[in-house]
Amino acid sequence: MNKTIKLFHGDGGKYTSELIENIFYKHFNNSILTSGIDSALFNVNSGKMAFTTDSFVVKPLFFSGGNIGKLAVCGTINDLSVSGAKPLYLSAGFIIEEGFSIEILDLIVEEMAKQCKLLGVKVVTGDTKVVEKGSADRIFINTAGVGVIQNNYEMKKIEAGDKIIVSGNIGDHGTAITLERYGVDVKSNIKSDCASVYEIVEAIKEYYPFVKIMKDPTRGGIATILNEISSISGLGIKLVEENIPILREVQGVNKMLGLDPLYMACEGRVIIVAKSEVAKEILGRLRSLKQCKDASIIGSFTEDSERIVYVENSFGGERILNTLDGEMLPRIC
Amino acid sequence: MNKTIKLFHGDGGKYTSELIENIFYKHFNNSILTSGIDSALFNVNSGKMAFTTDSFVVKPLFFSGGNIGKLAVCGTINDLSVSGAKPLYLSAGFIIEEGFSIEILDLIVEEMAKQCKLLGVKVVTGDTKVVEKGSADRIFINTAGVGVIQNNYEMKKIEAGDKIIVSGNIGDHGTAITLERYGVDVKSNIKSDCASVYEIVEAIKEYYPFVKIMKDPTRGGIATILNEISSISGLGIKLVEENIPILREVQGVNKMLGLDPLYMACEGRVIIVAKSEVAKEILGRLRSLKQCKDASIIGSFTEDSERIVYVENSFGGERILNTLDGEMLPRIC
Repeated sequence: MNKTIKLFHGDGGKYTSELIENIFYKHFNNSILTSGIDSALFNVNSGKMAFTTDSFVVKPLFFSGGNIGKLAVCGTINDLSVSGAKPLYLSAGFIIEEGFSIEILDLIVEEMAKQCKLLGVKVVTGDTKVVEKGSADRIFINTAGVGVIQNNYEMKKIEAGDKIIVSGNIGDHGTAITLERYGVDVKSNIKSDCASVYEIVEAIKEYYPFVKIMKDPTRGGIATILNEISSISGLGIKLVEENIPILREVQGVNKMLGLDPLYMACEGRVIIVAKSEVAKEILGRLRSLKQCKDASIIGSFTEDSERIVYVENSFGGERILNTLDGEMLPRIC
Repeated sequence: MNKTIKLFHGDGGKYTSELIENIFYKHFNNSILTSGIDSALFNVNSGKMAFTTDSFVVKPLFFSGGNIGKLAVCGTINDLSVSGAKPLYLSAGFIIEEGFSIEILDLIVEEMAKQCKLLGVKVVTGDTKVVEKGSADRIFINTAGVGVIQNNYEMKKIEAGDKIIVSGNIGDHGTAITLERYGVDVKSNIKSDCASVYEIVEAIKEYYPFVKIMKDPTRGGIATILNEISSISGLGIKLVEENIPILREVQGVNKMLGLDPLYMACEGRVIIVAKSEVAKEILGRLRSLKQCKDASIIGSFTEDSERIVYVENSFGGERILNTLDGEMLPRIC
């Protein structure tokens, strides 16, 4: 077998089949995928389905806490999860640069399969394209996913007083990528939080009648997502700085680099907006999960038609969190 | 508004929203897409669903008969169609190189929306990533699609004697791309056949009980697809050269370039394998469609455990069509 990807791995012929068999079928092995039909076929019951997609162009491909494959599976699973869906099936589209190592491809796909297995999710359809050397930066992965809406979850109208809960420390993923990208040599244990959030949203399902919206704060971090939610709701948001869970090391590194962790991507956290009266109960339930021990109620919605998102510090000072309007670190996911 | 894509168009903030509103929402405008939820939500009835994906890296982006946007919509719709599904919803993931023209992006997305409209299909979820100049070749598009299986279509066991029908001239797309790529200056009307095949498979639905398999012969052309079907069936295939519909110009250009049109991609054709007794009826039905006036029965399956695919010419000569095992023109779709 070849050691690197050649253009002929993408021509649909013998070598494409070989690659599919030796890498994709080997790891993603399931009867829907290997049926030889142009689409994956599966049965569904009447109900509401969720469908989403994401492309992954992260640089570097491997980082502390994960790799592009883990990100590609978890990212799409998380978009389904925060929409109230149980993720069922994924597609995987690979665009690979000529000369890419097949051994590294194998590691990436192995990690994707591992994440799928953890969640009972299957990659049932895929595609591989190879582009000439210099026409792509190593490998890009697109995943799309379908799932079924469970427990009648639906987005609801947000009202002033509704609480904002975050499921864990923020900014870990973005900070981990930044450190790797710039080779910042700090002794740190900062790791990407990249993980599925399905277990998290599943754990609070009995509160769904009181949950207004759930989102995963990826690109642009919690600041960007909260501006988005503020815009949807037509209300302002007040955050309490000391309640925002940020690892001391993440805080320190960002300070050193002049960056704001509130704008740093998370890849395994959920923002939950819920009615005030159940916020503490939801928090308690979250904290019973290992991955949510740092969950916190970080703020609430305010009557403010200007839709200002601001943070209040412990001295009563206020800082406005605008929507990102400049360049942040690109290729974070 | 900016005239070219900047890195900040991919950071999830203000400029990403602007791009989404001004380009994607403008053209793909539908309430599922614009709901602000992380996944597209829609109702389904009990039954069998089809799910597929494809990435598009075609070069050049615009070619005689279409562009990457048309290809991205039709390609995925066709994979669903030949699986017996009615295409319903698409996702669209864009990976764009910094510096790409927003005007050209607009043209591409406009064409995608136009194709969707023709078919009553909706782009309901999407994603945009921007990579640095030199990290991708202008634009790559991934589409995934879901549909519902109709008329109980299913793949069936192929038997010796089963006929192979092609819905129109072959090799047009691959040849059109080749001409553009190499700037071959021939006076020709060769145009890509890029189009949806849904109408075609829908037109023969009453014959589904006798249809064994349907495939669209894209990368690697009919030679590659027939080798794939031969492999699935465990049988050989005999094609009759004079019955394979190829435009005289396509034939001529390929001869000149030393290429074989049987290996050239089609993007709007279907290969249908059906029981011998209904083949002529299916052909008649196909030919009643404007886009299938050149449909033809090109060959049949033979008892041959070696699974040889060969073409017999009018003088009785035979030529074996092997699976592609060298480099063909890359980035054809």
